[in-house]
Amino acid sequence: MALADLSTQELAALTQSLRSSYDELASRGLKLDLTRGKPSAAQLDLSNELLSLPKGFTAKDGTDTRNYGGLDGLLELREIFAELLWVDPNQLLAQGNSSLSLMQQVLVDCLLHGAVDSERPWAAEEKIRFVCPVPGYDRHFSLLHSFGIEMIPVPMRADGPDADAIAALVKDDPSIKGMWVVPTYANPTGDTVTQEVAVRLVSMPTAAPDFKIFWDNAYALHHLTEEETKTADVLSLASASGNPNRPIMFASTSKITFAGAGVAFLAASTDNIAWFKKHLSMASIGPDKINQLRHAQFFGDAEGVRAHMRKHAQIIAPKFEAVHRILTERLGGQDVAEWTQPIGGYFVSLDVVPGTASRVVELAKEAGIALTPAGSSYPLGQDPDDANIRLAPTMPPLEEVETAMDGVATCVLLAAVEHLAR
Amino acid sequence: MALADLSTQELAALTQSLRSSYDELASRGLKLDLTRGKPSAAQLDLSNELLSLPKGFTAKDGTDTRNYGGLDGLLELREIFAELLWVDPNQLLAQGNSSLSLMQQVLVDCLLHGAVDSERPWAAEEKIRFVCPVPGYDRHFSLLHSFGIEMIPVPMRADGPDADAIAALVKDDPSIKGMWVVPTYANPTGDTVTQEVAVRLVSMPTAAPDFKIFWDNAYALHHLTEEETKTADVLSLASASGNPNRPIMFASTSKITFAGAGVAFLAASTDNIAWFKKHLSMASIGPDKINQLRHAQFFGDAEGVRAHMRKHAQIIAPKFEAVHRILTERLGGQDVAEWTQPIGGYFVSLDVVPGTASRVVELAKEAGIALTPAGSSYPLGQDPDDANIRLAPTMPPLEEVETAMDGVATCVLLAAVEHLAR
Repeated sequence: MALADLSTQELAALTQSLRSSYDELASRGLKLDLTRGKPSAAQLDLSNELLSLPKGFTAKDGTDTRNYGGLDGLLELREIFAELLWVDPNQLLAQGNSSLSLMQQVLVDCLLHGAVDSERPWAAEEKIRFVCPVPGYDRHFSLLHSFGIEMIPVPMRADGPDADAIAALVKDDPSIKGMWVVPTYANPTGDTVTQEVAVRLVSMPTAAPDFKIFWDNAYALHHLTEEETKTADVLSLASASGNPNRPIMFASTSKITFAGAGVAFLAASTDNIAWFKKHLSMASIGPDKINQLRHAQFFGDAEGVRAHMRKHAQIIAPKFEAVHRILTERLGGQDVAEWTQPIGGYFVSLDVVPGTASRVVELAKEAGIALTPAGSSYPLGQDPDDANIRLAPTMPPLEEVETAMDGVATCVLLAAVEHLAR
Repeated sequence: MALADLSTQELAALTQSLRSSYDELASRGLKLDLTRGKPSAAQLDLSNELLSLPKGFTAKDGTDTRNYGGLDGLLELREIFAELLWVDPNQLLAQGNSSLSLMQQVLVDCLLHGAVDSERPWAAEEKIRFVCPVPGYDRHFSLLHSFGIEMIPVPMRADGPDADAIAALVKDDPSIKGMWVVPTYANPTGDTVTQEVAVRLVSMPTAAPDFKIFWDNAYALHHLTEEETKTADVLSLASASGNPNRPIMFASTSKITFAGAGVAFLAASTDNIAWFKKHLSMASIGPDKINQLRHAQFFGDAEGVRAHMRKHAQIIAPKFEAVHRILTERLGGQDVAEWTQPIGGYFVSLDVVPGTASRVVELAKEAGIALTPAGSSYPLGQDPDDANIRLAPTMPPLEEVETAMDGVATCVLLAAVEHLAR
């Protein structure tokens, strides 16, 4: 039954019982970590063949991958990921080990040079603002904040960011230069932008002629079930809507092969690609083509990537199932929490009793369970409801996920009864 | 004898003879390239063991190099290069595959955030200027130009940039925010900054409190003879001079292992390192540690790097000797050219009769010998004397270097007599 319906006496008894459960938990000296979306050692092992690749160093087109050059990245790897990301190989660049770095580079280019459709460099504007679906990815927000870009939160929904709210914001305000979105299995909700919402985002009138959608497709291929959700074909939709230069797509193999030693991708319109390469050519003579050849040989083709992702799902799907099972068993029907049950990606978004998320994280920390700080999924780390907690169950072994989630449930309940008693 | 001393008749005869030599050259259908400082296939072969490294994936400190993290780069590789670059490992970051990218990142951070000692971001200044020793590295100049930074050329001398000229420029002009220098075996002259000049550069009063020396130590270890020139210890000198944050050093293994798949380094004061990392942390979760482990295992230690560099010298020193020998044989004593005879690095700087460099490059091109465009080693590609040509003899096989240089000598002479006849 819902906690709010308990009598004072019942609540006191429950509080006492939870306190002793928590004391027992805290006495166990746990050291568990659900903070970051990192792959586990077992997942990394799936790619160990990379350590002894490539065989040879010559690309299919005859390129000696050891030497300088090839700003676009290796064609044979771009062909594989172009198929997977549903873009043309000419619209896709393969670069270094971090898509976050590519996002920063695009922002820097916009700030210092202006986008293809800018009247002036963004840094010359008095104020720049970005629309940020919440909850969202903390690194997106800290990147914007580092450049003094203001953030306007809008709700992330099951079908994507609230398109009505965004359309209303951007239509009259030329200082709003862009927005983030993680279109597939979003961080942290696991939700996917529908084709309908994608169309609205690429076609809505914007006061800024150079409005950009940073389409961070980090989890495009990271299915947890047999339902392999298709990402909306944002480049084609934008093109058809007359705004071909609005979206810029990012992706990487960080959570496909080795998190620290993968290959990042950028896909965009022909004009955007030419613009990005022009600036890139000032700072790079080309990416690490050997690592790209290594990846191309490892995967073979697009189906090789899909088969590889199914192995990941086998390892991590049970962890997500454990999160859902334990939260349901411990918190179900008590009106103290809601959580997402994603069919892909790396996170579960847990909403606890408003005003208690920080306390839950604090209690968990004292019991040796590290959670992402409350508010992390909001601009400036400020969750106005103090309700959201991002859970990242991929890294620890299954047993640790189970132990940690049972502990988290205790903390959620204890924080809830403490809050009720105030 | 000097061409200028020839009688009209002698000059006419020589011109006719050179024309027929040139026609013969042009008829051979050559396709030779002395444009870029790229390692040859034989040099790249020296590092082929990297293709099957690393053994395992665990660093000495227990780090799983496959996963995210480790913004500084792998300690065991930093220790090797800290010894070679004469810095403390804590002052040295190991990053991606391009030191040019690190230079661009530092510039971007200065522009958008300001340096540690800046009053405001550089982008907020009305005008920014950089001192550029000439001849110098074209990519340094194009990078500055891409950000609208004005360039002030000063002469590069045998002992380094003209310190008197630079000191006079920077002492009263706060818009001069920095300078480039390739301190060891400079591109393209091969000259090395002496300890005395280095002291002057780090200690000279500057009107800008945040004046920076971009110390691009690309060729620190690239000796061509048994004389292994030591680079001035610029970080210590700057520290002792009370300007610890003035120099930022860059280096890489691009011309040590694989040009496209090496590891780049940044070394600087503790404050500069903290500053750089703070901004880097917004855009990166860490560099490719597997490639760093691969390099650490390949080299073993600093002596491993030194031994490896001696193998490079065995391959390329004969090419530099051929350049010098053929230029001496063909052009010596005729007062038509001067050239450097570097004991390290990747280039020879050739000065031809003023006003003829472009013509030499044009003649060479028509004869199938690609040279770097005349003026490339000057800001905006503008050599006021039209005299300088950068030769890059490492990439082609020795026989091709010989053929190409003999052809270049013919072009230099023909352009000179054409010029005299005007």
